[in-house]
Amino acid sequence: MILELADIRIQPGRQAEFDAAIVHGVQSVIAHAQGFRGYTIHKGVESPERYLLMISWDTLEDHTVAFRGSPAFAQWRAIVGPFFAEPPHVEHFTLLPQP
Amino acid sequence: MILELADIRIQPGRQAEFDAAIVHGVQSVIAHAQGFRGYTIHKGVESPERYLLMISWDTLEDHTVAFRGSPAFAQWRAIVGPFFAEPPHVEHFTLLPQP
Repeated sequence: MILELADIRIQPGRQAEFDAAIVHGVQSVIAHAQGFRGYTIHKGVESPERYLLMISWDTLEDHTVAFRGSPAFAQWRAIVGPFFAEPPHVEHFTLLPQP
Repeated sequence: MILELADIRIQPGRQAEFDAAIVHGVQSVIAHAQGFRGYTIHKGVESPERYLLMISWDTLEDHTVAFRGSPAFAQWRAIVGPFFAEPPHVEHFTLLPQP
């Protein structure tokens, strides 16, 4: 299992629209992708234009190869991209086991 | 409930030591703080010196006022600080409800 963290900055004042758009985008597009396991969305306290989208995937390649190489990626970006203030910063992480 | 995200960069090559130190620091210090609810630690795939420490708190002030104003904060930093390559970036987030 792999965690995708997308660190997103949207245009000021568009939070209410984006709240609806990102949920719609995840549920209607990403949630149907191969290897999708689940997600959470977090809104910034200190930075109200900052959002964290955290998605769990079975493997790194489910996201970086299968999803990004599919038509679904363009569908997702068409829903959320118009709100972005800059390209999101996306990296992947593994969970450190807790003893 | 509030999510603290600490975005940490450590010195190259010290991952194994830091894996142990951060778990020790959370479990021996932060886990006993007022309002602590739980945590996860994630290790970077693209950036092997990058760690995400995510801590759930009952309230923002449990972290920013009570914990940071207590002797426990210095204890925590004494355990993990020596590994940092730069000061960690720490912000707080609320969960966007999922319909």
